[in-house]
Amino acid sequence: MRAFIVLGHRVPLTPDFSLNDLPGSAGRLDVLCRCVTAAFCLSHGIRRDVIVYLVLQNQIVVRFDGSRLKHLNPDERSTAALIQKALKAFSESEHRDRERESTPGIFIAAGGLSDALERVTRAGLTVYWLHEQGSSIRQAELHPRAAFVLSDHLEFLPEEAALLERFPRLSLGPLSLHADHCIVIVHNELDLRAGLASSDALP
Amino acid sequence: MRAFIVLGHRVPLTPDFSLNDLPGSAGRLDVLCRCVTAAFCLSHGIRRDVIVYLVLQNQIVVRFDGSRLKHLNPDERSTAALIQKALKAFSESEHRDRERESTPGIFIAAGGLSDALERVTRAGLTVYWLHEQGSSIRQAELHPRAAFVLSDHLEFLPEEAALLERFPRLSLGPLSLHADHCIVIVHNELDLRAGLASSDALP
Repeated sequence: MRAFIVLGHRVPLTPDFSLNDLPGSAGRLDVLCRCVTAAFCLSHGIRRDVIVYLVLQNQIVVRFDGSRLKHLNPDERSTAALIQKALKAFSESEHRDRERESTPGIFIAAGGLSDALERVTRAGLTVYWLHEQGSSIRQAELHPRAAFVLSDHLEFLPEEAALLERFPRLSLGPLSLHADHCIVIVHNELDLRAGLASSDALP
Repeated sequence: MRAFIVLGHRVPLTPDFSLNDLPGSAGRLDVLCRCVTAAFCLSHGIRRDVIVYLVLQNQIVVRFDGSRLKHLNPDERSTAALIQKALKAFSESEHRDRERESTPGIFIAAGGLSDALERVTRAGLTVYWLHEQGSSIRQAELHPRAAFVLSDHLEFLPEEAALLERFPRLSLGPLSLHADHCIVIVHNELDLRAGLASSDALP
């Protein structure tokens, strides 16, 4: 089991945005969509043993559960449409603290980074903070049941850093990379360590 | 210098496609757009020392030159719009064998895989074929001036494989990955070997 918690700082909290303008009026939702693709999409299948938490402005958590996920395609626009559907379901919900499944495998509820951290901790995952000043992932001892926390195109806020400072920091290389590219590298490192066969990815 | 040659087997050869349907009527152009992003985009800058060749149906080559590239954003739609502009310039060109610069750093001409291979070879780059049956990139001797050949969502065609079989094959891990994710992993491997500092990426 691997989880990725991605912080979206400017993504809208309502479905009123255009799928034609993900980097603009949708607050760089394109970044989060590529993170979802990087987390789940293999060349011919979905990584079923992955959970993604998109934390929107520390107010809403959209959870993608690979074991139940359907209708996920690798392109940004269709993923954004799924998130838009989730936000629509959320806006119509009377019990926003309760998770609602908007499409198979996609759940939405009020919540923030602390809620996502609590869930992965409760699930027994070891949390790592992906951070440019961390120790090298290649040299690190890595638990195979792990959750990784990343930010979108913006830096971690002080209140986020305060929640994260108790976790070990891992860095991936000498350059500052996009969040989705970080997810690709983490998966590759864990795949190599696990020596996973392709047959482990269900179609 | 790093180069990536990406084969697009179904991408249209004319600009008559909708930016709203990259995976459908645009023949999985979304894959190629993500490859361009993976090849060039750092968190805060562009990798200037990279060239990408998109080979469309073995008939047109779109060349992205990082040293001159402008207007490149990380999202799929805006990259697809740049490719669409290039195809428009190509359709209006009277000398299609001659490269034409459609926007800064993006060039288009008639050509196929063999032309792209000839250019990178002439530039003194060592060519590697990214292939699931290759030897592990982590154990391989890698020339820092290298070109890597990848396919979109489809397998290499027999005529492509025939052109590539003289080059060493490299594999990246135990799972079959999207082409753009392969580019991310190759960059990371070379970044780590070069110990590049962030300052090497020009804004």
